[in-house]
Amino acid sequence: MSGSRIDHARTVMQRIEALGKISDDPNCLTRKFCSPAMRRANALVGCWMQEAGMGVHTDAIGNLIGLYQTSLPKSKIFLLGSHLDTVRNAGKFDGPLGVLAAIACVQQLDDSNTRLPFDIEVVGFADEEGVRYQSTYLGSKVLVGTFNPKDLKRRDSDGISMAEAIRRFGGKPEAITKARRDPKRLLGYAEVHIEQGTILEQKNLSVGVVTAIAGQTRMHLDFTGRAGHAGTTPMSSRRDALCAAAEFISAVETLARRTNGLVATVGEITALPGASNVIPGEVGLSLDVRHPADPIRERAVSAFRRKAIKISRRRKIKISAEIVHQAVAVGCDLRLSASLIKAVKQHQREVPLLPSGAGHDAATMAAITPVAMLFVRCKGGMSHHPDESVRLEDIRIAISAMEGLIEGLAAEI
Amino acid sequence: MSGSRIDHARTVMQRIEALGKISDDPNCLTRKFCSPAMRRANALVGCWMQEAGMGVHTDAIGNLIGLYQTSLPKSKIFLLGSHLDTVRNAGKFDGPLGVLAAIACVQQLDDSNTRLPFDIEVVGFADEEGVRYQSTYLGSKVLVGTFNPKDLKRRDSDGISMAEAIRRFGGKPEAITKARRDPKRLLGYAEVHIEQGTILEQKNLSVGVVTAIAGQTRMHLDFTGRAGHAGTTPMSSRRDALCAAAEFISAVETLARRTNGLVATVGEITALPGASNVIPGEVGLSLDVRHPADPIRERAVSAFRRKAIKISRRRKIKISAEIVHQAVAVGCDLRLSASLIKAVKQHQREVPLLPSGAGHDAATMAAITPVAMLFVRCKGGMSHHPDESVRLEDIRIAISAMEGLIEGLAAEI
Repeated sequence: MSGSRIDHARTVMQRIEALGKISDDPNCLTRKFCSPAMRRANALVGCWMQEAGMGVHTDAIGNLIGLYQTSLPKSKIFLLGSHLDTVRNAGKFDGPLGVLAAIACVQQLDDSNTRLPFDIEVVGFADEEGVRYQSTYLGSKVLVGTFNPKDLKRRDSDGISMAEAIRRFGGKPEAITKARRDPKRLLGYAEVHIEQGTILEQKNLSVGVVTAIAGQTRMHLDFTGRAGHAGTTPMSSRRDALCAAAEFISAVETLARRTNGLVATVGEITALPGASNVIPGEVGLSLDVRHPADPIRERAVSAFRRKAIKISRRRKIKISAEIVHQAVAVGCDLRLSASLIKAVKQHQREVPLLPSGAGHDAATMAAITPVAMLFVRCKGGMSHHPDESVRLEDIRIAISAMEGLIEGLAAEI
Repeated sequence: MSGSRIDHARTVMQRIEALGKISDDPNCLTRKFCSPAMRRANALVGCWMQEAGMGVHTDAIGNLIGLYQTSLPKSKIFLLGSHLDTVRNAGKFDGPLGVLAAIACVQQLDDSNTRLPFDIEVVGFADEEGVRYQSTYLGSKVLVGTFNPKDLKRRDSDGISMAEAIRRFGGKPEAITKARRDPKRLLGYAEVHIEQGTILEQKNLSVGVVTAIAGQTRMHLDFTGRAGHAGTTPMSSRRDALCAAAEFISAVETLARRTNGLVATVGEITALPGASNVIPGEVGLSLDVRHPADPIRERAVSAFRRKAIKISRRRKIKISAEIVHQAVAVGCDLRLSASLIKAVKQHQREVPLLPSGAGHDAATMAAITPVAMLFVRCKGGMSHHPDESVRLEDIRIAISAMEGLIEGLAAEI
């Protein structure tokens, strides 16, 4: 058993390499929704699904689905998966690791002729990163039934509408709403994903169980002061928008550091007019706030707003703060997670319980079925970068933990 | 006499309006070095110089020079003037006010048939703002003898070399080095300029006498931390370059506020990669530091450097700080300034002594002759902006003060 597990992990690693070469860009790894590279990726992963004993089809939007069926009639379905699309200039693991680990689990069941009291479906979601249409979770939204048909009219940078892209890919835009799954038939959804952080690395542990997927508030703030000559305007009569913004950025950092689990980031900043000898009159900046508990995030957002207003009043600067995106936190299912923790305990002295700061397909799926997630250590916490790296040993443990989750579920039913 | 002074101020105001319409850009006021608009401006101002009794010529680089000659042989020369070029989308007063006020003084002398024991030259400098060739003080440098002939090879955004631009304008690039003035023949240089600050406005006074033109250090700083996922990187393991930069900007402001007369400005900032969901790994910013006393400026620059290093060490961030431009402070001549103060006292209850935070042609001229400067109140301290505005009454007092300076000088010789 242990020997064959080593083989499955090696197979996953080899497949990660093979998939990493399937790209829309010859110079780096970029696989966009409904692109030629996605078609080739789906074809290849589909073969691997068949090898593992699954029946394979592609749904109306292009999600690749492998079905490992039990002989029992009217079986419920346990979903496993992750996404097969990537960001621009991506790493090989973000997404594919979850799909390939799921296939490895099924292969293991098939190899050992294990029959389960439920069906397993492995899903390779068609769009999680949203590169082509600046969208979010198109693939999982179709399963959940929250896909907005208006989005079919969106156009990519070449002017191709989403409907047209799906059609060229072989999908059926008109059938998307029917691809929604019946929650009553689902047992749950479990996803393996790289951590995209460094906690596992710091603890020197292979995997961790996700407690919740953080909620997010994305804001845009504008500070409007008064531009002026850098040489002739005394410090005391300035209304420097950048000094106000700097004070705000420091305050955000201080407050976020004080609040356990809160992350707050100013990633974009623009100062106008933007000349070395002119006092900035206007500064725009982005603020990204996340926490696994919504009330804590909401309190933080309010505190940041109050701080911005306070700074601006004192400095006689105008402030505007607009929320541009908001997502509530999604808690992972306690029962599934407990089963996952139990499985991980077979391999690790400690099972770290981690919140996920990044969004995942699991967050969408949670709307219709219990979800669980397993994070796998990645080198330096690197993600969305060609240097993404995961150890063979860690993949081995991830596959084993997912097998344990499936066994536990089978035992309970 | 008072009646005729009113007329001269009105004439200056009308001429400011007329010159304000001579632009290289039909939509806003922009007069660039050796441009068609500069040629028209020189021609018009040359006519006004002739009207005031001056002989007019244009020197090798395009400075417009009006000579009001005494009958005495081997007379010394007192220079008056400012620049006729402008920034892009400029106001009407920055530069031209000094040239037109000087012409008004000469007109007054000519009207009253006053013969002085020295010649007066009014100079309309061809380039002070440096818009076309990213240069500084081309016009006054030619008179001082510090013009660098290598600059003739510089090209503007259309690829036209400076030598070619000067030639097309009617100048003689090969004769520039000979246009240098003999310091022994010069009595001094005096310049009227808008304040570009709000001290006079705050004090409700028309004019002030400049004590010194501030020295300047312009630096570029780079903060290099580590980019990372805004959702998955805990606050405690971040090396956020923008948080480091924000702390530095606040420290600069605090230190500058504490130091009398010091101004320090971060006018440009760039954060990379510059996405709302990515922690900034790299921030570049400009720092402009000025003070009328060089040792104070130098100490401030050292303190800023130390602060940047301290912040960076604590945050495990790399820092580089490079000086991109440096100019020493120029003190105004005590004797000329005392004479100017005396003249201003005839019109104002108080004579504010102001440092100039901005550079001026006077700073260059100081290398070969004593200089004095008179600042005129401008609305809201506005400069380099179409909204520049100066009151008629203030121009009247400025002309009168300059006449007083000339009379004082004549009485001393």
